[in-house]
Amino acid sequence: MIHISLKRLLLKKEVSFIVREIMALLGTPVFVQDSEGRVLLGNAGEGCFKNRHPIKLGERVIGWVNGGERALVLASLLSYLATVELEKKAIGREALEKYKEITLLYDITEKLTASLNPKDVAQLVVDQAKRLIRADYISVMLINEDTGMLEVVAVSGEGGCYTDVIEALTGIKGNVVHTGKPEIINDILSDSRYVRKAIGVSSLMCVPLKVKDRVIGLIIIGSRERINYTAEDMKLLSALAFQAAADIENARLYDSLKETFLTTIHTLAETIEKRDPYTGGHTKRVMNYSLAIGSELGLSEAELERLQLAAVLHDIGKIGIRDGILLKKRKLSFKEFEEIKMHTIYAEQILNHIKNLKKIIPGVKHHHERFDGKGYPEGLQGDGIDVIARIIAVADAFDAMTTDRPYRKSLGLAVALEELRKNAGTQFDPDVVKAFMKAYESEKLLSKEADTDAKHINSG
Amino acid sequence: MIHISLKRLLLKKEVSFIVREIMALLGTPVFVQDSEGRVLLGNAGEGCFKNRHPIKLGERVIGWVNGGERALVLASLLSYLATVELEKKAIGREALEKYKEITLLYDITEKLTASLNPKDVAQLVVDQAKRLIRADYISVMLINEDTGMLEVVAVSGEGGCYTDVIEALTGIKGNVVHTGKPEIINDILSDSRYVRKAIGVSSLMCVPLKVKDRVIGLIIIGSRERINYTAEDMKLLSALAFQAAADIENARLYDSLKETFLTTIHTLAETIEKRDPYTGGHTKRVMNYSLAIGSELGLSEAELERLQLAAVLHDIGKIGIRDGILLKKRKLSFKEFEEIKMHTIYAEQILNHIKNLKKIIPGVKHHHERFDGKGYPEGLQGDGIDVIARIIAVADAFDAMTTDRPYRKSLGLAVALEELRKNAGTQFDPDVVKAFMKAYESEKLLSKEADTDAKHINSG
Ligand SMILES: [Fe+2]
Ligand SMILES: [Fe+2]
Repeated sequence: MIHISLKRLLLKKEVSFIVREIMALLGTPVFVQDSEGRVLLGNAGEGCFKNRHPIKLGERVIGWVNGGERALVLASLLSYLATVELEKKAIGREALEKYKEITLLYDITEKLTASLNPKDVAQLVVDQAKRLIRADYISVMLINEDTGMLEVVAVSGEGGCYTDVIEALTGIKGNVVHTGKPEIINDILSDSRYVRKAIGVSSLMCVPLKVKDRVIGLIIIGSRERINYTAEDMKLLSALAFQAAADIENARLYDSLKETFLTTIHTLAETIEKRDPYTGGHTKRVMNYSLAIGSELGLSEAELERLQLAAVLHDIGKIGIRDGILLKKRKLSFKEFEEIKMHTIYAEQILNHIKNLKKIIPGVKHHHERFDGKGYPEGLQGDGIDVIARIIAVADAFDAMTTDRPYRKSLGLAVALEELRKNAGTQFDPDVVKAFMKAYESEKLLSKEADTDAKHINSG
Repeated sequence: MIHISLKRLLLKKEVSFIVREIMALLGTPVFVQDSEGRVLLGNAGEGCFKNRHPIKLGERVIGWVNGGERALVLASLLSYLATVELEKKAIGREALEKYKEITLLYDITEKLTASLNPKDVAQLVVDQAKRLIRADYISVMLINEDTGMLEVVAVSGEGGCYTDVIEALTGIKGNVVHTGKPEIINDILSDSRYVRKAIGVSSLMCVPLKVKDRVIGLIIIGSRERINYTAEDMKLLSALAFQAAADIENARLYDSLKETFLTTIHTLAETIEKRDPYTGGHTKRVMNYSLAIGSELGLSEAELERLQLAAVLHDIGKIGIRDGILLKKRKLSFKEFEEIKMHTIYAEQILNHIKNLKKIIPGVKHHHERFDGKGYPEGLQGDGIDVIARIIAVADAFDAMTTDRPYRKSLGLAVALEELRKNAGTQFDPDVVKAFMKAYESEKLLSKEADTDAKHINSG
């Protein structure tokens, strides 16, 4: 409700002048009261007041003009001025709300489109909602298309809330998904659809994330205390949901394509690997070791991305080596070894066709260079070798030494580590070996084993 | 400028009553004039008018109250009412503008986030701009990161405008890119930076497309006639540009990843192909023939996408066949041929690892099935074979017949076409052969040769 103060209206310089002039013109005593009977102008004790004219704002009486019959003009004037004032305030409030909404929309657009990672976008949605609306608990849940279940992808709140929740499409949430309509439930205990969960919320607001007419998920906001979520809160949250849905969807499409890309090159690399006497999983292990070393060295996200792609594709050139040589179990002749060396050159030729993968050529082509310059194909040395290649060299050697080969058994961990240490500064970059040892000691290498996450791949 | 009509103000019922009452109270003759001297109220001919009180709106005189000294109250009242009216209108106009801006923002968000194709998004931007602002020419130009040049990616307008324009970062556009600030140039001929081009524009508006602080391109709007683009036009266009920039950037990242994905699988497929006695380019030709047949058959975009991926990867399973068999130039033994057949099974095993590529397994696995059920690996027949596989079978056979092989020369076009016709209904699906013939006659097959576009690939 917008409030108009008659007292404040009468204090305005122009109004005060006009009213006093009219009182003087009337000639007879007049006084103005507010709706509670307080005298705002004139003297109630002076003379007799035949008439009591109401000052009205719509149907509501906000005061009185007491005086003769003609004092009606004053009541009319004050009614009119109060009405205009009310209209002005109402329009002003509307403009302010619209202004806030615009600021919000720009802000959301700027923030949410800045990422193409669905979890990051969802977290930004949670952060924005937190800023906008009072809540103890906020979460973004998305429908997993494979399972049809709702999954929490971002959450905020203390105590009883948690991520990785998976729920069926039932209860209040199921309803919002099915109808596509937002809901406010200010007293959740009296809602028959409510199923008591670990999170103790009393009041709740739930809006669908919609892409065109398809519901892809929900934003849920809850308060432990019973509070009243208003239509205005709902409007803000819906504005957020509107923008969020499109951005989350686009991020999911991007993510899905990224995963397909990485899995595809990974699978093809492993298939190529099967022609090779190495035991399976070499590519994946080299990737994991490389990423552990890279993190230890403090590489940037962009460098880690290059490293991951280069590690996955480091032996891609073997696709061009004939079985007769690649699969040979006895020692290779000089000529045969020269042919094997060509896999670094073949890799370069392959990657040269792929614009966005040209950046990983140095990492792939030079993974058999040695720190002392005695490697191949170019005999580069020291910092002249891309750091990506120096990392893969260590990861590749370590995996070769610690797995069984057709012509010998695994050397064992202790021997392999000793070999790396012994050859640091000659075959290997000593800093890379140091980083490997650190990663090894902090058990990062082992924990990385199971990690097939595509997070560093972003070939845009 | 907002206009307040004194005449209309005096016609309001409440105002009219109040003013007449005050005139009655004054007792002496009074009349009200507008700023042009027209009498709005009272009678100018009646009696003498000592004072002429101005009715003021800010500094501007909008009318006069003529009468005695005390008639000043009427002038004050009308001045005050006019001022309040003006304020109300100004706030109302602001609210309306904000309302329009909000509607625009929602509308833009909904439209622009619906696509992840940069050209489509840019075209939507052009369409939106057309709706919002008067113009004969609208274009979206993006900076090509490799060349540093501005390239038109979407355009609207009759006559002198065209797409595929490439420009250096000079003149007005260069300025907007470098400063990141929008510009209105209502008289372009008097602007020293203007370089006369084929498009005859007189007035111009140019806003940058910015992602964070990086300018990625421009929206340019022009009018042949000289008109005045206003700050309000600029605001609308800037709102559009704000949303557009983020969406175009995300679409470009998606597109780039898509291209990388397609080029990578293409390159790897071709590398695998090199181990094979086929001449190079087999994969690409099979893809192009397949897509031509698919369009002829009226497949949906989603089906064409599956078709493209399946065609590129149809022989991926050959990666698992030993050189000794794959490269054999003489007739294969029964056992050797059984091994060759395995490439369809190997392909399934490979693709099974890639979630988003499982959908192409039927197309790949069954490209050697025959319509009469005498093919491999499963002996499926008729509609039991995925249409994708039936298409690839025809495309694959046609390319095999029309290229030289180590053991025989190309059969020539005429013979190859005759073979397809002869085997329609036995080896091949007759509808697919018919579609191939149609595509062949309309020369779609030839025009497709050069088309390496990734447009159907969307593995999300
Ligand atoms: Fe290697
Ligand atoms: Fe095949």
